[in-house]
Amino acid sequence: MNYIPQSLAKVIEEISNLPGYGEKSAQRFATNLLKMPRSEAVDLVRNLAVMLDKIHPCLECGIYTEEDICPICKSTERDKGYICVVEESFDAYTIEKTGKFSGVYHVLGGRLSPLEGIGPDKLNIKSLIERIKKYSAKEVLIATNPTVEGEATANYIHNLLKKYPLNITRLAYGLPFGSVLENADEFTLSKALEHRIKV
Amino acid sequence: MNYIPQSLAKVIEEISNLPGYGEKSAQRFATNLLKMPRSEAVDLVRNLAVMLDKIHPCLECGIYTEEDICPICKSTERDKGYICVVEESFDAYTIEKTGKFSGVYHVLGGRLSPLEGIGPDKLNIKSLIERIKKYSAKEVLIATNPTVEGEATANYIHNLLKKYPLNITRLAYGLPFGSVLENADEFTLSKALEHRIKV
Repeated sequence: MNYIPQSLAKVIEEISNLPGYGEKSAQRFATNLLKMPRSEAVDLVRNLAVMLDKIHPCLECGIYTEEDICPICKSTERDKGYICVVEESFDAYTIEKTGKFSGVYHVLGGRLSPLEGIGPDKLNIKSLIERIKKYSAKEVLIATNPTVEGEATANYIHNLLKKYPLNITRLAYGLPFGSVLENADEFTLSKALEHRIKV
Repeated sequence: MNYIPQSLAKVIEEISNLPGYGEKSAQRFATNLLKMPRSEAVDLVRNLAVMLDKIHPCLECGIYTEEDICPICKSTERDKGYICVVEESFDAYTIEKTGKFSGVYHVLGGRLSPLEGIGPDKLNIKSLIERIKKYSAKEVLIATNPTVEGEATANYIHNLLKKYPLNITRLAYGLPFGSVLENADEFTLSKALEHRIKV
């Protein structure tokens, strides 16, 4: 007989349906909450509800924001002619931390993945083209992940944008800073050789 | 500059403080929620709140339940003279699935772990002794995990209970069913030899 109480079983079932979660990790999440001081757990759940209430994609670029238009799109210091295309909001936040990009972002909301049934229609590509036209964009920097799916997505976007008069660029492949050459994989090393820099 | 919206940053910070979570896994959890159909995400969060409201440790054995006394402790078919001591509620649910144990459980709420500052006072050991006396228990089956910390916890409880007139038992160590002998670790194999069964 299964003695897991219903309200606990329900939460475990719902969490185990999230991508990257299974039954065990869902159990661990629920147990963690139940073992915390109850007031802290209630706070966390309340903050999750606040997050779901406040956070929406920016109407312009799709980045997660609490406002209609995100602070980056609203800023007069950002050049809307330079658009950096990322898969998810957190990719944009990560690039933002470098402080080296002064354009705006465009969040696709995922990557092409035939296996998961994610085709071009599931990604925010139409709005990217609208923005390119609206702001007569000069450069689109495709910053999808350096994975097979990220590459396929980048190629797809590149083909779509070829007909527009703009520079299409990609983040450089190469050795990660602080890494050991001996441990680099062949693909990364090939790319680092191919795109070697004149000193 | 950090553009992560406040309500999102707060949730990530709180989740990354959970045991077994870091910043990346907290981000993934939050992103999963934000990418779900909003109504499902709101439902999940509501169910988490319901769980926190309803689930409490059983006043008798400490297992997570929605009632004051759990269905196992309440059942007249369970022998309260046989107590199975487990670290967490889910260990009890797992044993319950076998249908081979007809006694009651006692949830310690963790394991001895000096590194994490968990001493005997943090575990439900006092109430175990009270139950042993109250029901004149005949057997205590210590079913802590087969880990260093689980073993230490079992030894500690064994020493405490020695003076009572009852059988103290442990779950058997041995080869897991369906495993390959060649791949068994030395410790497990030593235990399987030591506790070999007469056929």
